[in-house]
This record gives sequence, structure tokens and C-alpha cells, in this order.
Amino acid sequence: MDSSQLQQADLLIEARWIVPVAPRGAVLHDHAVVVRDGRIAALLPCATARAQWQAAQVRKLPRHALIPGLVNSHGHTPMSLLRGIADDLPLQTWLEDHVWPLENRLIGPEFVRDGALLAIGEMIRGGTTCFCDMYFFPDVVAECVAEAGMRAQLCSPILEFPSVWATSAEEYLRKARQLCERFREHPRIQLAFGPHAPYTVGDSLLRATAAQAAELEAPIHMHVHETATEVAEALRDLGQRPLARLAGFGLLGPRFQCVHATQLLDAEIELLASTGASVMHCPESNLKLASGACRVAELLAVGVNVALGTDGAASNNDLDMFGEMRTAALLGKLVANDAAALPAPVALEMATLNGARALGIDGHAGSIEVGKCADLTAVRLDCFNSSPQYDVCSHLVYAAQSSQVSDVWCAGRALLENGHLQTIDTAGVLATAKDWQQRVLATKRTAARQTAEAE
Amino acid sequence: MDSSQLQQADLLIEARWIVPVAPRGAVLHDHAVVVRDGRIAALLPCATARAQWQAAQVRKLPRHALIPGLVNSHGHTPMSLLRGIADDLPLQTWLEDHVWPLENRLIGPEFVRDGALLAIGEMIRGGTTCFCDMYFFPDVVAECVAEAGMRAQLCSPILEFPSVWATSAEEYLRKARQLCERFREHPRIQLAFGPHAPYTVGDSLLRATAAQAAELEAPIHMHVHETATEVAEALRDLGQRPLARLAGFGLLGPRFQCVHATQLLDAEIELLASTGASVMHCPESNLKLASGACRVAELLAVGVNVALGTDGAASNNDLDMFGEMRTAALLGKLVANDAAALPAPVALEMATLNGARALGIDGHAGSIEVGKCADLTAVRLDCFNSSPQYDVCSHLVYAAQSSQVSDVWCAGRALLENGHLQTIDTAGVLATAKDWQQRVLATKRTAARQTAEAE
Repeated sequence: MDSSQLQQADLLIEARWIVPVAPRGAVLHDHAVVVRDGRIAALLPCATARAQWQAAQVRKLPRHALIPGLVNSHGHTPMSLLRGIADDLPLQTWLEDHVWPLENRLIGPEFVRDGALLAIGEMIRGGTTCFCDMYFFPDVVAECVAEAGMRAQLCSPILEFPSVWATSAEEYLRKARQLCERFREHPRIQLAFGPHAPYTVGDSLLRATAAQAAELEAPIHMHVHETATEVAEALRDLGQRPLARLAGFGLLGPRFQCVHATQLLDAEIELLASTGASVMHCPESNLKLASGACRVAELLAVGVNVALGTDGAASNNDLDMFGEMRTAALLGKLVANDAAALPAPVALEMATLNGARALGIDGHAGSIEVGKCADLTAVRLDCFNSSPQYDVCSHLVYAAQSSQVSDVWCAGRALLENGHLQTIDTAGVLATAKDWQQRVLATKRTAARQTAEAE
Repeated sequence: MDSSQLQQADLLIEARWIVPVAPRGAVLHDHAVVVRDGRIAALLPCATARAQWQAAQVRKLPRHALIPGLVNSHGHTPMSLLRGIADDLPLQTWLEDHVWPLENRLIGPEFVRDGALLAIGEMIRGGTTCFCDMYFFPDVVAECVAEAGMRAQLCSPILEFPSVWATSAEEYLRKARQLCERFREHPRIQLAFGPHAPYTVGDSLLRATAAQAAELEAPIHMHVHETATEVAEALRDLGQRPLARLAGFGLLGPRFQCVHATQLLDAEIELLASTGASVMHCPESNLKLASGACRVAELLAVGVNVALGTDGAASNNDLDMFGEMRTAALLGKLVANDAAALPAPVALEMATLNGARALGIDGHAGSIEVGKCADLTAVRLDCFNSSPQYDVCSHLVYAAQSSQVSDVWCAGRALLENGHLQTIDTAGVLATAKDWQQRVLATKRTAARQTAEAE
């Protein structure tokens, strides 16, 4: 066959191993991904790929595993600027005495933009191509995502009380609607309704959120059953556990993203399964705040879609999905009291395809399948900690570090090449974070002085 | 003062931050460590150091934290050659159906040497300067340690049944005694008695081990209360929980290193405290095998010395003490149901000074103090995942990856410089691991065929 008969592609990626995630546990040896117009045009043995395709660019990954880009299904990117500001504290103390007082003084478009870029740099460097974010000024984060070339779901915050983002229930809802509509046609960005938590949103606002999200067919993303205290106080004050209350308002369903869910009764696991809601599991954040542990293996057993998220860097303290996969797999075994629970291929699926499914984008993301977008992550395995190589999935979950990620593509565009970020100004973003460090510390001193004077 | 009046040193290390570990939580800014004859001659502000000392070599670490070299207090280094060979299985299945059949066919001095070097390369690369190992042919591992320039305690195995290492109780004990005596004067290597576990060593051999270790004042290192099954079977067969049985033989005491201890009654926590035994906590291995979780915060509260270990790479699957610190801190909060439990400085102490204390070498290792050996690890913090920098201890435990380790010294000798191993042939060790991969897979196929034929 002469070269004029070859099919034309933009990019040919040849890898020692490809873990497509679908079907579960499959590992292809010496295969290639053919990328055309941002999508996966073919997935086939390297020799066949070379015989059938001519690509403008070829990337050889002889010591690497190629996996779907990781999907970080819950976080608060701008909070990366507060990483390590207050640790080893219970959730309510951490929020009420440290995080919220600082945020009240700091949050604005500049803080959100600079924090989001810091987080995006970290996520791309660690192999994440898609994330779900809940924070003020989601429009600003969306701009950062657009520039950086990632994929994201941004949740427009909804709260009962006024904030820097909106002053009334109506304004929160109006902004959420407007943003959903504005990004409806964007190829990589979708907006969602983000009611913060059952204890920060009242009944009528929850009802309105359910109705408006249904009308727009928009996802709803919410912290639910994060701690035992949340559930106990709801029972005390409202006579009802939060999930039951949300179900009563018609919030649960395939578009509902239930974040944390560390406190689940058997009946609540059934409720999540029967409504088709997804759970966003954030094991490191749950452990760090001693919130509890999600019953992941049981959720998966009854068919609940469980995705994986890091939560914000202020409660994790990194956005490392490799670490999160490992923690999820390890903790899942302890909680199930079964070393066979959450095996490596399932952890990898939670960090990729299940994340895409929760966001409703599994038709075009989350696995390496022909027709899907070319969201891809390459991981070097020729390191001490990943030698020898008997089982690639095991290495990805139990041994590899995110620093072994060498290349990342999103919709076929290179975001990381040989460890170098292509769409983020590394030095600039780190210098800006250093500037914020001084501002945050000064703000913390001021806040402490004002608190002392008030007492 | 002219330069002739300056004191002479071999090495001056100037760091942006120094975390000496003792006193707990201290962070020194812009300080220097002066190294002379392998020991820390001074710890003082950089400007003072430059005014008082002249060093043959100066290493500037302007973006780094300098910490004591990490102490990995439990492992089986040669098993790195079996990393990922059998995962997501319960302890007894994993051992009896996978690990032991393979080991029986593979173990010899060559396997031990090549596996130990792979593990040592990984450990130095990740900031570990000292480790504790339990495996056959500890003399071979000792040679590797001597060549690589690390510090180690090697445990001479003691088992009730014959193995490739010894054929009788007498031979196990004689070899342990001989090795203890042979390395008595070594500056970096000590030997210990390594009775494998309560269920693999009988009463009379345990009694003899206790007596002979006492005579030599040698440490005793043993897997104890690793799983609920171990305790239940001991109760069923011997009418006694293992720790009580060991106490009856006089094994417990300051030289006793109790590995795992995931199953502890209140009275057993008191017993460990009153006898002065140390616990070697291996959280990732315990989680991966669903063995249970050690009650670390309660042990620490009553004064038990708890050190940290990775266990072997076949059950972890890496030898990464940064990951292990993080898992210990996170899991410790869940087990204690308290987000303030196991704060970052305590996790760092477990991974350094407590390890040295368990091995009885805290007089000269485990912290950055004048007079101690210069066992030091430098960690770059100018990365996305460790920016901004409010709290160095928090970053080391909750955010840093072991890949951020840039330099490692043991007794003042550089083992890692700017990310490059100085005493290990990286390419050679990785190539040898690749050769073993083929041999192990061939052995696994043979073992499976023989099992099938026998059935």
C-alpha cells in the first residue's frame, strides 16, 4: 500500500501498555491510539496502526502506560491558595474558625483566578484532564479551564445566606441558570447547580433548585452526609436525615451528584441506587477531617456509580488522583473488611469512567474507546517503585506517583509534554502563589487581631 | 576574624527550612547543618555558620526543607522483585497460594541481593536513610547496605520449620547469634533476632530466642497480632492471645519490636506501655490485606513508641515513607475519630525519631541534633502541590511526594545528589529487575502446572 492510501491522522501515540478502562481490567500491549480532530479514531496494535495511518505527529511511549485522563470529581480549586493554612482540626472548627473568616476577606475574581490556575497546573501535572469544581465565581474558573485546555464541570454556588457571589436566593438561582445556558454549547465546559449542603440551603431554595435544574436538565452537585454531626443535627432540628429531605424535594436522580456520603444507612444505599444518583467519594478529605468512611464496596455492589475526588487542597492537601486512587482502594478494603474489595481496576475506573458518568459525559470521555475524545494520560513505569512489571493496573493504583505522569492530552491537545506544562505558565503561577502567601498571612493576622479585640 | 580562625568542616548544608524533629514541631528558617566526620557538628543560622565555619563543600537548598533521614521500620527488601505479582487478596491466600510457593522456588543469595538493591535504590530515592529488614540471607542484605552506604537493622529469621536459610531451630539460633556478633562493631549495621510470628514459632524456640537475645542484648523483631484470624486461632489452639503468650516467655521489653499490632485490647496497650516495647506500624500493608487498623493515637497517648514501616513491596506496593506518613496520619484520625489525632509533626516523628528509638539507635540517629550522625534528607517544596508554603510539616506529610526528595546523606556521605543515586547503579539494578521478571513469571507458570498435576 503506498502512502497515498494511508488514512490521515493528527497524532499517533504508541504505548508499551494501554489500559482503556472499558472493558474493565483490559491491558493492551504495544498498541497505538490514533487521534483525529480531537477524537480517538482508532485503537489497534502498533504495527497495524503504522500500516494504516499517517500521522502529522507520532509520540512513542516505550516505557509508559497510557490511560484515560483522570477525572477529579470534587474540589474547590481556588482554595489551593490556602493549602496547609490550618490542619489537623475537625471540620466545623476548620471551616468556622479558619477557612470561612479568611475566605470572607480574600475571595474575589483575582483570588479565584490565581487559585484555580495553581490547582489546574497541579492537576494537569498529575494526569487529570477533567475536574468538577464548586466555588464562588465559577465563570472565572471557567475562563481558566478554557485557557488551560482542560475539561470541567463548574458548579454555581447556591446558599441560603448572602456572599460575595450573590445576595439573595433569587440571585444565586439566576446566576446558575445564566451560566448553564451560557456554556450549553461549550465542547469542554458544563455548568451545574451547586447547592452547598443540606445545612446551608433551606427548603424553598432546595425546591426551586430542583425545579430549575430539571428544566435545564442540569446536574446538581452537593455535599451530603459528610459528617455524623450533620446528620445528627438535621435529625434534631428537622426530624429527618438529610438524604430523606432531599429525596422529598425530588433532588435525587441520575443528575444528582452526592458528595462525601460517609454516613449511609442500608436504606439510603438502596435509595441512591434506585434513583440513579452518583456518589463523589473523597477518601483523603474524609479521613483528614475524621468525617468517617464511605461504604464504597456496598454502593458499587448495588450498582451506584461511585466517582473519586480529591476535595480542595485545604482539606487533602493535594489534588493528586494517583494518591486518591490508592487511598480509595486501601480504605475500601478496611471498610469492607475484605482484601478483595475495590481491586485496582475498580479504583482506576472510579477515577476515570465513573467520574465521566457522574458528570453525564461518559458518551465522550472517561475511557479510551474509538469515537470518544482523546483525553489521555501517559505514565512512565521504568522507575524503581514500579519495577518489575507484572501487573500494570496494580502499579498504577498501588505504586505509581503522579510525578511519573509524562504527557497529558485533552481532546487531542497536548497539555503536558515530557513533564512540561504547555498551557500554564509554571513560573508565573508559582510566583503569584508566593505573593498570595504574604497577603493571606497578613489577612490572617488582621482577622486574629479583630477577633481578639471583639472578645 | 580571618579564615585561619574558622573551624574546618567537611560539608555545610544551607536550607530554607530545617525540621529537626526534636524538639517536636520546630521549624528553623535559613539555618545550616555543619557536618564533620559524618556527624552534625553544628546547627545554626546560615549567616553565623558562614562566619564560623569553613567547609570543603557547601550545598545550598534555597527551596528545600531539610529533615532527618527517614527510618523505614519494617520490610522485606528482596520481595520488591515480587511487587504486584498477586494483589487484592486476603493475607493467608496471598501468602499460602502465591508468595510462599514462589519464594520456595526462587530464594537464594542472588534473589536476595538483586531484590535488596532494587529496594535500597527506591528507598534512598525516596529519602530513607535507615531501614529494618526481615528476610532470609540477612548477611547478603547487609553486604548491600554496606555498599550502598545506608543504615539498617537486619533481622535473622527464626522459624519452626526448615527453610533455605536453616534446617533446625538450633541452626536458626546459631546463625542469628553469629550475625549479631559479626556486626556488633559496625557503625551502620546491626543484627536482630527475627522470630517470624507467634503462629510460626513454637514455645521452646521462643523461650530460647528470648534467652539468647537477652544475653546478646539484641533486638527482637516479630510480626504480632497482624490479623484477627491470628488471634482467634491462637485462642482456639492455645487458649491464649499471642501477646500474652510472648509476655509469658519474657519476650516483651524495650528491645522488643512488635510489628503490625492491628488487634489490641486495652490491656494489651497497657502491657506494651509497661514493658517498653515498640510498635512498628505499617498502615498501608494492613489496609491492603484488610488486616485491620492499629490504635496508634491510644498507643502514643500512654507512651508507647510507635514507629512507621512500609512492609515489603509485595504488600504495599511501594517503599515510600512519604506516602506512609500520609496514610498513618489520615488513618490515625479515622481510628481515633478525631481530626486532631496524629497531627503532621507526630507523623514525621514516627517516620524518623521513633524509628531510631525502636531500633535503639536514637542516641545517634533519627533527628537533626548536634552530635548525631548526619543522616539527612532534602525535599524540594517549590512545586505546584506544595505551594504556597504556610506550614512545612503539613506539606511534608499531607502534600509532598517522595519524588520531591533531591538529596540524601547518611553519616555525612551523599547517597543522592540532585535526584541522582550515588551508590547504586540505577540502570543496572533496573535491568536486573527486568531479568527477574521473566524468571519469576516462568516460575509461576511451572508452579501452577505442578499444582494442577498434583490435583
